Amino acid sequence: MKKEIPCEMQVVTESGGIVVPKGFKADATYCGIKTIKDSFDLGIVFSEYKSAGAALFTTNQICAAPVKLARKIIQKGYIRAFVVNSGNANACTGEQGYKDAEEMVRIAGKCLKISEDEILIASTGIIGRPLPMDKIAAGIKAAATSLGNTPAHGNNMARAIMTTDTKQKDIAIRIRINNKDVFVGGISKGAGMIAPNLATMLCFITTDVSMSASLLNECLRNSVESSFNRITIDGHMSTNDTIAIIANGVSGVNILPDSQELQIFQQGLDYVTSYLAKALVKDGEGATKFIQIDVVGAGSNNDATRIARAIADSPLVKTAINGCDPNWGRIISAAGYAGVDLDEAKINLYINDILIFSKGMPANCDMNLLSKSMKRSEINIRLELGLGNCTDTVWTCDLSHEYVTINAEYHT
Amino acid sequence: MKKEIPCEMQVVTESGGIVVPKGFKADATYCGIKTIKDSFDLGIVFSEYKSAGAALFTTNQICAAPVKLARKIIQKGYIRAFVVNSGNANACTGEQGYKDAEEMVRIAGKCLKISEDEILIASTGIIGRPLPMDKIAAGIKAAATSLGNTPAHGNNMARAIMTTDTKQKDIAIRIRINNKDVFVGGISKGAGMIAPNLATMLCFITTDVSMSASLLNECLRNSVESSFNRITIDGHMSTNDTIAIIANGVSGVNILPDSQELQIFQQGLDYVTSYLAKALVKDGEGATKFIQIDVVGAGSNNDATRIARAIADSPLVKTAINGCDPNWGRIISAAGYAGVDLDEAKINLYINDILIFSKGMPANCDMNLLSKSMKRSEINIRLELGLGNCTDTVWTCDLSHEYVTINAEYHT
Repeated sequence: MKKEIPCEMQVVTESGGIVVPKGFKADATYCGIKTIKDSFDLGIVFSEYKSAGAALFTTNQICAAPVKLARKIIQKGYIRAFVVNSGNANACTGEQGYKDAEEMVRIAGKCLKISEDEILIASTGIIGRPLPMDKIAAGIKAAATSLGNTPAHGNNMARAIMTTDTKQKDIAIRIRINNKDVFVGGISKGAGMIAPNLATMLCFITTDVSMSASLLNECLRNSVESSFNRITIDGHMSTNDTIAIIANGVSGVNILPDSQELQIFQQGLDYVTSYLAKALVKDGEGATKFIQIDVVGAGSNNDATRIARAIADSPLVKTAINGCDPNWGRIISAAGYAGVDLDEAKINLYINDILIFSKGMPANCDMNLLSKSMKRSEINIRLELGLGNCTDTVWTCDLSHEYVTINAEYHT
Repeated sequence: MKKEIPCEMQVVTESGGIVVPKGFKADATYCGIKTIKDSFDLGIVFSEYKSAGAALFTTNQICAAPVKLARKIIQKGYIRAFVVNSGNANACTGEQGYKDAEEMVRIAGKCLKISEDEILIASTGIIGRPLPMDKIAAGIKAAATSLGNTPAHGNNMARAIMTTDTKQKDIAIRIRINNKDVFVGGISKGAGMIAPNLATMLCFITTDVSMSASLLNECLRNSVESSFNRITIDGHMSTNDTIAIIANGVSGVNILPDSQELQIFQQGLDYVTSYLAKALVKDGEGATKFIQIDVVGAGSNNDATRIARAIADSPLVKTAINGCDPNWGRIISAAGYAGVDLDEAKINLYINDILIFSKGMPANCDMNLLSKSMKRSEINIRLELGLGNCTDTVWTCDLSHEYVTINAEYHT
């Protein structure tokens, strides 16, 4: 379906993207939560108009106070601001943590002069420490007074949500709908893992289309399914994961259910979420290679997913790829323990488009060519099961010495 | 129940244990499958009398030819010999691989002058290469002619099954049943992982009690549930895992179902399998620490298992422990994504018997004391869920630079 309606789309920028959609402002400040002074640790994204909002959260049973509160607030479907701090996750902080999250919303409501029901908060950083509320209050006040829509403002916001990230993840695209320009901008951070006690994957998206909250929620859910739900760094889901979107309608383009406009918008949103999700994997802790795993010919989509994830989460597969080794035995055996019935004699495995395992046996391939291709920074694994027509794709990264260094040498 | 009948038990030896039970012989040879010449790569364990046998195998959908064949042979319940090679797993080798496995049994039957139905074979090593049958044949002949029951013979066998193992895993115990001595001996190799393309966990056990094959199978299954099924190195299940036992009855002690004797024997067997399973973890690739994870207070045993495994398989938990860091945030969040309903406010976490997380909040513990205790080679994690009376224990090891070195720097 999706591909039948072509989407005219252009990437506008890869920095400051969050304020590219019309009617949005942002800024960030350093208020002293992070220990690194040359950084930002509190940021705000603000819509000048009443807006629809939607959000998805971690399914981890142990979730942070801001997630618990945001889950309540999003119910009404109107969001005008994201207020986010880094350096402290406000997770495993008990009742006081929840009160602090409520206080954070209260302060932001006053500073931004909007209803508390329209503010979605998120926190990322150290787990189990009380939120320094004096700093948070000062930070919100400072950021709220300097909001703007220049690329610098957007950049500050993108940097304010970073923790162990080495790169800013940031994009804005323009799409044409009904001969009008509409924009989608987004930022993300973290890498699906809990970095050294610093929790979280966060993603914030802005757009100037007009849309009902329920349709926006549906679009976001679809988009996350094909992007953030397709990535894994180390299989460790965080307590604070939040993906949220605001649609303020400033473009004048209204998106209705079951419309061609919706199909076009969905493609644009999918592009943004895929870009931001892949950026997380590429910047995964210690990652030197981006790995795409395609499982095809499965009996069900769920089977394809289980196998793709088993391969993606295998430390043996990840270390082999780190070492540029096309170690097909590890890939095939990881597929074998995914809990899916397989027929060995029907399996084909391609690494970087080279057939290395064919119908249950090692294939006679050009090992020199294959070895050379393993040095690339992007590796493709394609597993054909020969059992049906279902497929899945998962993106992951390799497991390096640097990963162990980052995660073993950090001390709480 | 078990604890009501005390088991009088003594460890006899930690080397050459496989030939300690009466009526067993063993030996091994180097026949040129492994590239390291100063080693053994083909071994035989032989019972002088007709014996009951039982075995359990990998549940990986991609399993090796010897596993496929051994699964058939074990059906009859009579086993007199284990014939094992290392250096080549005979996995992913198609029809020829299965024919080679059959040929291996045929040769062993001739050399040992026993029925082919009484021979259980196993292979471990490189995946996807044809078994060098000339070498295998020569090896079987050589080992079969030099069988004996001295500790040296037992040692040779224990060494013949090793691949990336740095230590021999070997034990024999004596237990008293009805005022008679009975013995259980065992060896194991591998570490639950597929080492650099070298597959497999193997374990072979001998005993001189008399027992029906079906009861022996039940005992083995129980024992494996509380030992080998409680360990994880890197969550990567191999294509060749095999655990097998022979009971030859030479001690004159007969074990009947539902008897006190059975309870005593089970305890002895459990000791041997636990010892050998823990030895695998301690010798896990790059392991510097042995980690015991106890989950208590779960609503079901399955819940406890899922949580214990989520913690044990988290690379973030494993790297933290490698770095001697009592990083409770990673442990709690791993528990949270295990797919089990939790009540954060009821959770307590102890590391090395020190309460670090209490009722959903960080506990006020002596961090100096805790940090010091993290330098031990054995680490205990105890998670109390407060939801029920079910428990599980899982054993694992840390994730070190050495693990990455071993697995990334190996080249196929």
